[in-house]
Amino acid sequence: MSEYIEHDRNGISVGLVEKKYFTFAHPPNEMVLESGERLGPVTIAYETYGQLDKEKSNAVLICHALSGDSHAAGYYSVDDPKPGWWDIMIGPGKGIDTDRYFVICSNIIGSCMGSTGPSSINPETGRPYGLNFPLVTIGDMVDAQKALMDHLGIEKLLSVVGGSIGGMQVLEWAVRYPEMVRSAVALATTARHSALAIAFNEVARQAIMADPNWKGGHYYNGPRPDHGLAVARMIGHITYLSEESMWEKFGRRLQNKNAFSYDFDADFQIESYLLYQGRKFVERFDANSFLYITKAADYYDLAREHGNDSLAAALSKAQARFLVVSFTSDWLYPTYQSRAIVQAIKKNWGDVSFCEIDAKWGHDAFLLPNPRLSALIAGFLDNVSNTFQE
Amino acid sequence: MSEYIEHDRNGISVGLVEKKYFTFAHPPNEMVLESGERLGPVTIAYETYGQLDKEKSNAVLICHALSGDSHAAGYYSVDDPKPGWWDIMIGPGKGIDTDRYFVICSNIIGSCMGSTGPSSINPETGRPYGLNFPLVTIGDMVDAQKALMDHLGIEKLLSVVGGSIGGMQVLEWAVRYPEMVRSAVALATTARHSALAIAFNEVARQAIMADPNWKGGHYYNGPRPDHGLAVARMIGHITYLSEESMWEKFGRRLQNKNAFSYDFDADFQIESYLLYQGRKFVERFDANSFLYITKAADYYDLAREHGNDSLAAALSKAQARFLVVSFTSDWLYPTYQSRAIVQAIKKNWGDVSFCEIDAKWGHDAFLLPNPRLSALIAGFLDNVSNTFQE
Repeated sequence: MSEYIEHDRNGISVGLVEKKYFTFAHPPNEMVLESGERLGPVTIAYETYGQLDKEKSNAVLICHALSGDSHAAGYYSVDDPKPGWWDIMIGPGKGIDTDRYFVICSNIIGSCMGSTGPSSINPETGRPYGLNFPLVTIGDMVDAQKALMDHLGIEKLLSVVGGSIGGMQVLEWAVRYPEMVRSAVALATTARHSALAIAFNEVARQAIMADPNWKGGHYYNGPRPDHGLAVARMIGHITYLSEESMWEKFGRRLQNKNAFSYDFDADFQIESYLLYQGRKFVERFDANSFLYITKAADYYDLAREHGNDSLAAALSKAQARFLVVSFTSDWLYPTYQSRAIVQAIKKNWGDVSFCEIDAKWGHDAFLLPNPRLSALIAGFLDNVSNTFQE
Repeated sequence: MSEYIEHDRNGISVGLVEKKYFTFAHPPNEMVLESGERLGPVTIAYETYGQLDKEKSNAVLICHALSGDSHAAGYYSVDDPKPGWWDIMIGPGKGIDTDRYFVICSNIIGSCMGSTGPSSINPETGRPYGLNFPLVTIGDMVDAQKALMDHLGIEKLLSVVGGSIGGMQVLEWAVRYPEMVRSAVALATTARHSALAIAFNEVARQAIMADPNWKGGHYYNGPRPDHGLAVARMIGHITYLSEESMWEKFGRRLQNKNAFSYDFDADFQIESYLLYQGRKFVERFDANSFLYITKAADYYDLAREHGNDSLAAALSKAQARFLVVSFTSDWLYPTYQSRAIVQAIKKNWGDVSFCEIDAKWGHDAFLLPNPRLSALIAGFLDNVSNTFQE
């Protein structure tokens, strides 16, 4: 095992980890969702890394993005080919140091990675929910995470950390449970989607719903809407990159040949890359979950839900210290959206650090190895942690 | 009729126009395409506005974009609800003044608006070509237009004018038939697609080819791949707008209600708008033509085809005076791509005027009423025309 860990090119790993499950909200005590619908029982898949200290003061909650899961760090087995999705950030001595912090990551409800979602069995029918699953919001996802924190006996979080849709959960945590959140790290995120972001999500959803295998969301007994989901993923993937990084990575280079095919095969490497991303995605993700989570992201509007359309009023409810980070080439959630969050916090005389990181990898930059980002987060958590202990 | 024309809010119209057809390249004298394949007979649908002068010196060729057609100006009948696609630019006293110029617009081959394309009857089989239609390039489209010019007895064009994929044809004309092109007006275009532009086109094509009704392109006897084509159009449409214009036009405004639906209907106006654009498009456009034309655009690379990968070398073949126009918010063909064309022309000591127009409407800006653009083109043509007569 030690040899294995030493070969991890991202530094020391948290090592072997285990997916755990917590089930709550059994009928008749179901979760009441923002829509007014009820959902229960609800299962949350989660993982933890590091040790909770005696004072329960070192818990850091990680919130994942659209297609993420609870497996944020470490390996499931010694022959596991790759670690959790944010292993570059979470581990001993890393940006989120598991020697110091007790790190929790849970799969959001609506997803398909162990937590209750549209592919879960509806206890009322004994079949997968499909579109009978109620629409869940970012607030509902946070409420489910709150139930997990209660279960783990954690009353205060040292920090809530996440990027993209995970960053929306971070903002929501800070406003919905202000007394529980000492600090909040919101990366490459927004307090609300632009019309452009909604547009991309809607087209992606249309691609799924146009697939005849989708069958109104009730496809679990037959072939899956793989074609539609692959197209949806390809659309999403374009928005996660930047024009510059695509050009640098692929340019107009051709695939396997120096001449055009003069047919509709993938001629360009960028085409093959996207097709590969689409194919790979359908092996691990559920089309209905894609619909539910993108809709939750489109609905999310912190100002509307908590501030009567004022972002400052919404964020005035937060008590957390904030670290907000944007990336120069992120055109899905551009820097101006992060600045709006920062300005709203400042209007309330809140404590906020902001950094726009010069990175050419587009929205995906927050997931890629970046010493500056790791150092920023490490320094911020260290600072919060020291203040917390006083 | 005069009353009708007076009610045209875009000013004086060219009035009633007629679609004409020219057929050439009959076997065994088919067109030889860039791919090496042969195509014939080839029919070109075209329209003309204004009068050709005795010297045949006032002909202006208009090149249309992806979904355009030969109907650039005027009305087909007195109760025709709308004029041709560039009626704001073409007409008496307009940017391209039909009192002075003889304006020709032809439908590109590969399209479905009257010129030969994949939905045309293959004379060998008596059935629509489908994917047996050979892949045509921008150069092939220009060659077909050249045949039409020969047919019309036009040896020199006062100008070739077009935007987007039409702009590619403009550049190709100037380099392929330099002695025929006195001036070239290239709007919102590029000498080659970025990886990002290819990526969007490929995802759109995948959406079409994923539709089971597509059936490998042989769908003309049955239901059409409308779902796939609608998604493809929606993807394209997003790239024609800008984040700013989408926000201004739609913001996060909801459709028909003040509350979320909590289902997968279109909640936001931007969603309804895109769905409408998709639905409308399938009524008038052929899915295979969408595949062929986007592929031609992706293949287009002026430097590669004419300059051994040097844009300056390619454009050194041109003799035309150029007007190049880009639009600030066009992120599909951004200004840096127009600048590359301009710099390449300047390297050859060529005659080029360049203007980046401050416009928030994205790539579509070249199609929208813009007094500055109309004045620019009018002035440029006037100048070229006066020089020509000397």
